[in-house]
Amino acid sequence: MTIPAPLSGVLVVDLTRVLAGPYCTMVLADLGARVIKVEAPGRGDDARAIGPFIGDHSAYFMSLNRGKESIALDLKSAEDRGIFERLLARADVLVENFRPGAMERLGYGWDELHARFPRLIAASISGFGQTGPYAERPAYDVVAQAMGGIMSITGHPGGKPTRVGTSIGDITAGLFSAIGIQAALVERHRSGTGQRVDVSLLDSQVAILENAIARYSVTGEVPEPIGSRHPSIAPFDAFATRDGFVVIAAGNDELFAKLCEAIGAPEWTQDERFRTNEQRNQNADALKALIEAALAERTASEWLNVLQRAELPCGPLNNIAQLIEDPQVISRNMVVSAADGAGGSLQMAGNPIKLSAHEDPKTREAAPALDGDRQRILAELDAPAIPEKRLER
Amino acid sequence: MTIPAPLSGVLVVDLTRVLAGPYCTMVLADLGARVIKVEAPGRGDDARAIGPFIGDHSAYFMSLNRGKESIALDLKSAEDRGIFERLLARADVLVENFRPGAMERLGYGWDELHARFPRLIAASISGFGQTGPYAERPAYDVVAQAMGGIMSITGHPGGKPTRVGTSIGDITAGLFSAIGIQAALVERHRSGTGQRVDVSLLDSQVAILENAIARYSVTGEVPEPIGSRHPSIAPFDAFATRDGFVVIAAGNDELFAKLCEAIGAPEWTQDERFRTNEQRNQNADALKALIEAALAERTASEWLNVLQRAELPCGPLNNIAQLIEDPQVISRNMVVSAADGAGGSLQMAGNPIKLSAHEDPKTREAAPALDGDRQRILAELDAPAIPEKRLER
Repeated sequence: MTIPAPLSGVLVVDLTRVLAGPYCTMVLADLGARVIKVEAPGRGDDARAIGPFIGDHSAYFMSLNRGKESIALDLKSAEDRGIFERLLARADVLVENFRPGAMERLGYGWDELHARFPRLIAASISGFGQTGPYAERPAYDVVAQAMGGIMSITGHPGGKPTRVGTSIGDITAGLFSAIGIQAALVERHRSGTGQRVDVSLLDSQVAILENAIARYSVTGEVPEPIGSRHPSIAPFDAFATRDGFVVIAAGNDELFAKLCEAIGAPEWTQDERFRTNEQRNQNADALKALIEAALAERTASEWLNVLQRAELPCGPLNNIAQLIEDPQVISRNMVVSAADGAGGSLQMAGNPIKLSAHEDPKTREAAPALDGDRQRILAELDAPAIPEKRLER
Repeated sequence: MTIPAPLSGVLVVDLTRVLAGPYCTMVLADLGARVIKVEAPGRGDDARAIGPFIGDHSAYFMSLNRGKESIALDLKSAEDRGIFERLLARADVLVENFRPGAMERLGYGWDELHARFPRLIAASISGFGQTGPYAERPAYDVVAQAMGGIMSITGHPGGKPTRVGTSIGDITAGLFSAIGIQAALVERHRSGTGQRVDVSLLDSQVAILENAIARYSVTGEVPEPIGSRHPSIAPFDAFATRDGFVVIAAGNDELFAKLCEAIGAPEWTQDERFRTNEQRNQNADALKALIEAALAERTASEWLNVLQRAELPCGPLNNIAQLIEDPQVISRNMVVSAADGAGGSLQMAGNPIKLSAHEDPKTREAAPALDGDRQRILAELDAPAIPEKRLER
């Protein structure tokens, strides 16, 4: 349990702002990479202005930038460019999420970077990608969710547009970028050379559509929002009980038979409408009505006891307060904390990647103050080798 | 552009079924890993029974298993276990998404695997993880979405439960697993030893809550569904026009000023309610009503022209049919195709990780028939080294 973290020794220079890029570098930091944020002097990362706030400090920023360092550099000033380039000479990875073209205007386009720093891996995260007719358009998460089709299949039939309640456009782009960066790290062991990773929010939304494109390709029917059920599996939905909802997912014939038995309707397995998953899915509304009629007799918590005893995939609808007190969430260390800069501590989501050879700490180093690591970073650049991890503050 | 793909030479033995595991190994395959599915004889991957179908073949299965190989092995038969173990001796990575305990019952728990195959990286994907009080409970995506809190913040205020329209529980678990596997590959270059990656659907849902936990931690208010707007940024929403919706996201003061100018209401920037993002967010409903009153004069496509000229982050709400014809999506090669086994081809989402040193092909090898690669794989096991990529069928 005491070998260095998997990305120990990987130095990430991080020009990213707001969410997609910072989420990517947070994942890398949680795996042991050293992440140095290079922020614009004065204002820094835009997320520093997004609430809620603790005193003057953004909790939004803190939760995404725990464990990183900060130096403020003006990439249009010669002196600061010199510092930035000395950092790049030591770095393994550069991550940025400016609009395409911005790095080129700064003289740090991929061709220049690759010529000067051949081992450097550079990841660019943008709304639409580095190529194509929309490349230079700006985007935030909701634009990618809307254009990327996921909003067209989320929500209730005939209802108003529904955004996924978390910024899944940014977050999946951050995850695909972390995957691309690590693939380039693996490859660099062979070739000795870095490469460029180009990930967009829009592409990432397309990539997580699961089988919606294949379904449309086969059936010609445009997928629509269908509430809380699954498009191809039934029963797989939220069902009303006497006092609230439970979710139940019976993804194959065996589980469906178990469900029928558990709720006292074994005869449904003989119903022509429900013999196979395909038939159950075509008759999902009728099946849901029958299930809800049966569930109306007892409370959600009573039914969950029955269904869990039958080993059926099921669960309650947790809100955030219930979630962070859930025994499994606590046991898995999925809520961690970091100092909030005001004498208290802030709770935030932990690392879902549990590795057998590494610790999964309950706390994180606090997010950095803007330019808060400047002196130490400058001193390190004069040393023969930059430390794998920052020193204690 | 002609160096081998980043994960060339990585051999993945894939015991996974349905979605989370197959999505993980699809991502690895798209990056050049060789993926051999080991399926249960007779039935194979459960996803083979999930529609829609082309002839007898599941398009759902095809879209997730393109480019993989298949061998059917009964892991309770001595002969097949011998074959499986010869595969493991050559493999870099084993991925499985059985319920926790199943691998141990087969004699392939992590301790046994690690003792016999010390370089092997083993990833386990499960509903709740390998540890904790719920470890052995079964789960499908909707259970993780419900328990993981994302359904509590998705949908409209007071509305019915709303599942994210794609299986984001499975898919994010697949992505975090791919990240964990690659981190272990990077680490193995140093230590020479594999490790175990343990990822759950529930943990992955917690990890993508963005700032919901931090918000609750700071304010004590339980986050609720808020339709299509952002919890901390305004304006950032879908807005009705004369004939449909557009999404607009103005994440900072400059963009808000541009938006006011573009829709003919520059005076809003002087409104006390809208001076900062924090104030705009507190008055998001009033701001939305003003914006929609202004937008009611023209159509969505007219407004998108105006807003795009002003360089505002904005876009249409695309359905799947519109999405796959979008010039940017086409230009980015985000819809690829593979042979469907019935003489035609099936469209599916492409790879969102664009790498400068590697091709991004427009087609994929078809998904395998159950046990379809048996003879070749068995022959390869007798050869001194297993090929990096499968031979052409």
